[in-house]
Amino acid sequence: MGKNFSDFFLSSECMIRMASGWFYLSCLLLGSLGSMCILFTIYWMQYWRGGFAWNGSIYMFNWHPVLMVAGMVVFYGGASLVYRLPQSWVGPKLPWKLLHAALHLMAFILTVVGLVAVFTFHNHGKIANLYSLHSWLGITAVFLFACQWCLGFAVFLLPWASVWLRSLLKPIHVFFGAAILSLSIASVISGINEKLFFSLKNTTRPYNSLPSEAVFANSTGMLVVAFGLLVLYILLASSWKRPEPGILTDRQPLLHDGE
Amino acid sequence: MGKNFSDFFLSSECMIRMASGWFYLSCLLLGSLGSMCILFTIYWMQYWRGGFAWNGSIYMFNWHPVLMVAGMVVFYGGASLVYRLPQSWVGPKLPWKLLHAALHLMAFILTVVGLVAVFTFHNHGKIANLYSLHSWLGITAVFLFACQWCLGFAVFLLPWASVWLRSLLKPIHVFFGAAILSLSIASVISGINEKLFFSLKNTTRPYNSLPSEAVFANSTGMLVVAFGLLVLYILLASSWKRPEPGILTDRQPLLHDGE
Repeated sequence: MGKNFSDFFLSSECMIRMASGWFYLSCLLLGSLGSMCILFTIYWMQYWRGGFAWNGSIYMFNWHPVLMVAGMVVFYGGASLVYRLPQSWVGPKLPWKLLHAALHLMAFILTVVGLVAVFTFHNHGKIANLYSLHSWLGITAVFLFACQWCLGFAVFLLPWASVWLRSLLKPIHVFFGAAILSLSIASVISGINEKLFFSLKNTTRPYNSLPSEAVFANSTGMLVVAFGLLVLYILLASSWKRPEPGILTDRQPLLHDGE
Repeated sequence: MGKNFSDFFLSSECMIRMASGWFYLSCLLLGSLGSMCILFTIYWMQYWRGGFAWNGSIYMFNWHPVLMVAGMVVFYGGASLVYRLPQSWVGPKLPWKLLHAALHLMAFILTVVGLVAVFTFHNHGKIANLYSLHSWLGITAVFLFACQWCLGFAVFLLPWASVWLRSLLKPIHVFFGAAILSLSIASVISGINEKLFFSLKNTTRPYNSLPSEAVFANSTGMLVVAFGLLVLYILLASSWKRPEPGILTDRQPLLHDGE
């Protein structure tokens, strides 16, 4: 039994070392891409769209793209990958569950503030809410995110759910996690596209003449797509998943006495 | 050996029966959703946008959304799922490889005709090509699709590639297959959004008043998203994947004598 135990940890150590190199390289790329997505969106809003305010004006709207990219894509993507950190493969799973839930909560708060920014701007300027396909898809993604967080908290952190229920729901949780990120990316792309058509009409250099703002914002959209695909790749690449023996530690409820 | 062989087929039979019920129900839903995606897009173009022509006019453009939804989403999605058909789990893999490649080729041809429609319309009306984020993302998806098809044909159908190379490239091929579908869906969403802003400006009932055309086209976009997510679910659900013994039949090149 002792030998099996040490064998398990030795093989775990080996797997971690093998996977770590590529994983950290991907994380470096991911961190750089994610930072660029946020910084590029801030720069776009600051340099071409007049900066930020919180007063119901168009400058309040400018928080919307920044906070949605930060919340629904970058923080959400980073939070999704907590269990792919090789350090999370061994030892108790609960701290990683808490980190996963806390980071997603931060992502959700950024998202809600981003929604407040656009709804306040619309209401202030008597502009209709939720008419475009961008908004239909975006609000669906946020609604699914809220459901996913609550269901995840109830099933994987609270202590009542059985191992059977958790095993049943885990692949669905992972699938919907990836699906919500895909919907968010589609929303961001349609949002950037829509914003450029709005902002660059009736100008001397409209969108179809590809002024520098259009090239910059289009590139920001392509960066968001690259970031999203990298998150999905790391999420789905089987060599970076917590190894099977980890299933034994799956049942670690939030309120367990031993924790 | 004989017992193992019959055991394998018995267990395969059992697995097929178990997975078949849900799979076929999902296929029915998928077929209905896919047909609705295409029919709704045709109806939108026919009823609200004046129908179809092939003469460089706006009626030629109307082929673009129909053919892109049909090619890059519905046919592409269906073609991706060939190996999830329980019938493909046993016996020679080559016929299924050929079907997979042929259906994707059909999807690609529809896509190319869809691109010809929009480029011809733009060139005829002296409208710039490839300036919007929708077009940047869409053309990236089509380019990746072409690379994916050629690489897939070269590695998985032509006889030169080793088992090692195929095993190495297979998960990358599956990931990029799913990634291209995700990019296509994001392109379709931004395309529908953009088309509605174009078509419904300067009208008595603009997009933001949600006329019936807007509700219908937004719903079509949401259907496309639902179809795409269902394809990705079936593609990634492990219980519908060809069971592991199938790996033995992986190396079945196109030009193998025994076929």
